[in-house]
Amino acid sequence: MSIDAAIRALSTVLGDRLSLSKPDLDAHGQSESHFDAIAPDAVAYPASTDEVSQIMTICSGHHCPVVGYGAGTSLEAHTLAIQGGIAMDFRDMAQVLEVNASDMTVRVQPGITREALNEDLRATGLFFPVDPGANASLGGMASTRASGTTAVRYGTMRDNVMALEVVLADGRIVRTGSGARKSSAGYDLTALMVGSEGTLGLITELTLKLQGQPEATAAATCAFDTIDAAVDAVTATIAMGIPMARIEFLDAASVAAVNAYSKASIPVSPHLMVEFHGSDQGVAEQAERFGEIAAEFGGSAFEWATKPEDRNRLWQMRHHAYWAILASRKGATAIVTDVCVPMSKLAQAVAETQADIDASMIPAPILGHVGDGNFHAILLIDPSNADEKRRAQELSTRMAERAIALGGTITGEHGVGMGKLPYMAAEHGVGWDVMAQIKRALDPDNILNPGKVVRLNG
Amino acid sequence: MSIDAAIRALSTVLGDRLSLSKPDLDAHGQSESHFDAIAPDAVAYPASTDEVSQIMTICSGHHCPVVGYGAGTSLEAHTLAIQGGIAMDFRDMAQVLEVNASDMTVRVQPGITREALNEDLRATGLFFPVDPGANASLGGMASTRASGTTAVRYGTMRDNVMALEVVLADGRIVRTGSGARKSSAGYDLTALMVGSEGTLGLITELTLKLQGQPEATAAATCAFDTIDAAVDAVTATIAMGIPMARIEFLDAASVAAVNAYSKASIPVSPHLMVEFHGSDQGVAEQAERFGEIAAEFGGSAFEWATKPEDRNRLWQMRHHAYWAILASRKGATAIVTDVCVPMSKLAQAVAETQADIDASMIPAPILGHVGDGNFHAILLIDPSNADEKRRAQELSTRMAERAIALGGTITGEHGVGMGKLPYMAAEHGVGWDVMAQIKRALDPDNILNPGKVVRLNG
Repeated sequence: MSIDAAIRALSTVLGDRLSLSKPDLDAHGQSESHFDAIAPDAVAYPASTDEVSQIMTICSGHHCPVVGYGAGTSLEAHTLAIQGGIAMDFRDMAQVLEVNASDMTVRVQPGITREALNEDLRATGLFFPVDPGANASLGGMASTRASGTTAVRYGTMRDNVMALEVVLADGRIVRTGSGARKSSAGYDLTALMVGSEGTLGLITELTLKLQGQPEATAAATCAFDTIDAAVDAVTATIAMGIPMARIEFLDAASVAAVNAYSKASIPVSPHLMVEFHGSDQGVAEQAERFGEIAAEFGGSAFEWATKPEDRNRLWQMRHHAYWAILASRKGATAIVTDVCVPMSKLAQAVAETQADIDASMIPAPILGHVGDGNFHAILLIDPSNADEKRRAQELSTRMAERAIALGGTITGEHGVGMGKLPYMAAEHGVGWDVMAQIKRALDPDNILNPGKVVRLNG
Repeated sequence: MSIDAAIRALSTVLGDRLSLSKPDLDAHGQSESHFDAIAPDAVAYPASTDEVSQIMTICSGHHCPVVGYGAGTSLEAHTLAIQGGIAMDFRDMAQVLEVNASDMTVRVQPGITREALNEDLRATGLFFPVDPGANASLGGMASTRASGTTAVRYGTMRDNVMALEVVLADGRIVRTGSGARKSSAGYDLTALMVGSEGTLGLITELTLKLQGQPEATAAATCAFDTIDAAVDAVTATIAMGIPMARIEFLDAASVAAVNAYSKASIPVSPHLMVEFHGSDQGVAEQAERFGEIAAEFGGSAFEWATKPEDRNRLWQMRHHAYWAILASRKGATAIVTDVCVPMSKLAQAVAETQADIDASMIPAPILGHVGDGNFHAILLIDPSNADEKRRAQELSTRMAERAIALGGTITGEHGVGMGKLPYMAAEHGVGWDVMAQIKRALDPDNILNPGKVVRLNG
């Protein structure tokens, strides 16, 4: 392996689009959560798929690690170059290539963010529904199999990516999927690449499914006396088949943090934030049915947000909840947990987690996309306090183990990165070995995001 | 490779559940379509996952080919043991293992058929929606990524398999997926196995998503003057976002064959067969909106089937359409084509196919799941007429090429098997090489359904 030789060769190809400047390297070595910064040796800014292919051919020849980089919003240290090498930043590949309104699809480059994409689509009456909160890049969202607030209605990136263009470790360019809505033509390489976190290839183009803007939209917050009551209301709502567009849970601590950060005055108790999409009549009917269920579980203080600006304000508060919670403990950093369990186990999982948090004395608000069985505890730790960090890690480990024991998964949407690696064997068993076999087959020199997702020397 | 040695070792394990009887071998060497019969050397009837694992360990040691076998309803020769070896028949692994009503999931063994599963679920108010017409086994349906009449509403096997247990070529048992509705924990091995046609592993257990029986259901047939009008009505219906449960197209020749076979008297012209699921009010609203669109395109002779027995009769006719069409030409065998194109290209694809069929003079009724852009032409050929067979193959090849040129796929739901192998390179390019790399990694001796899906010496 010679990272230096790779950098020399790359600078010939890329000129000043290969950056070695310290601020640039440092910026690409940051993580959004508790991981220590690790800067790459260089940052490449490719302008085309062919350039990505050239870069991979060079890096492959020199066994130089390459880590894909979108908006840098991931939470499990996906973009840290832990074995050094090149950060491949898709900043300059961020175009909408083609809107196909009749098929309700769009072709985009990987660097575009979801907000920029939806801004671009605004005049078409179509939108891209997957919404992880952060203004992530679409390439990054596909790579982590992201989901978020609207997955309960529209699915995750698994369901919304129709086709990909991917550059493999050796520089080959592969197109997966097609414009057809379904296919039985061989292995589902699109699904294999989605969620592979840049370890099997680098996504250089995505074809995404779009949705029509709903005729009517309504959103509301609803307060509950206890966490149990709020979660039980969610389970009942999903069981009734009400097609919720969003159904988000925030515990009292999350609400308090949101109030402080967003200058809001939501009553400080467990809340659901909900949204309905449909025809005027459909939305009214859904809202009524949800209201009945909420009332059954003691839900009160229904606050409607029907005007677009009120709705936007509501979801912006929700989207900023992570920053709000971080700000609620001065100087803290966060270990963000992200488990997902079967709906029938959600109430138990949340209750046991809450008890565990209470016993740990670590400030850890709980919130999440509970309509999918997915929730987060944001463990706020003093980075200089080793004991606190250890106890938080233990808490996080117990959450992962609990999710597995309940038939769920160690990460619903954030991905594996480095943070979830220790639990992959427990969740997947032999399946984790199979993942490593696939990784070795497609990237034998382990240059694509090494040290993430799989273990190769096991 | 020693098939004989494998058979000797297997008979010690399986006793009389390893069959060498000629009628049994012959039965497993048949295909539902035009492929020549090829019998396996033995048929194994495993009774448990552990037995499947033992069989694979033995066959792996002897490099003996193994071909999974469910209900034998596949159309592209998936189950033919073209390199000899063992047919693994899942007849004795056909149980419902667990219905989880609160999570709306079911765990089943691979040999159960979809009709048997739905019969078993009847009292629960839940049903498994994927319906390819044939009474296929669930293991087979997952292996071919099957879909059928209801995919337009409920998705394909890709969308409805949550988790799998799979025995790999070397006998290892792997569990993919979990009970959670979503996960970002590593490569999507469930999606990789679904559609892999028994070439990467043998499915020994499936966890499937279920649906609640709709409150109301209505079905109807609607006649059109021309194929174009019927197809345009479908495109408009899908574009309007009407949540059709089924929207099937049959051309006049298909209708005539169905009438003769099922003793029906549907007017002999292009038809749509549709079904609506929802609340009473929702179904009425959907039916009204569809009726308006159909009328716009000259649709007439709306025949409603609201009573369950009338609906069942309607869909039974549709499900028997393949047999009806086969019977419409005495002594014929069929080359069944199965392309899927983007919705915006459907009208063009059907029109060009129809013109091509007309010019070819080969009887070839067209029908299909047009709400997905998926349609079939059933090319009826005299098996003793080599010239006719050649011309039909050419027609089939042009359909596949046309689908690729229009941005679609060479198979929407039947799978690759042997019939679609010649077009895989054209559809996937480098992607087909990647599939072969994955196959080599997981089955280095190529014992799992060799000769299907991938090309290993390319």
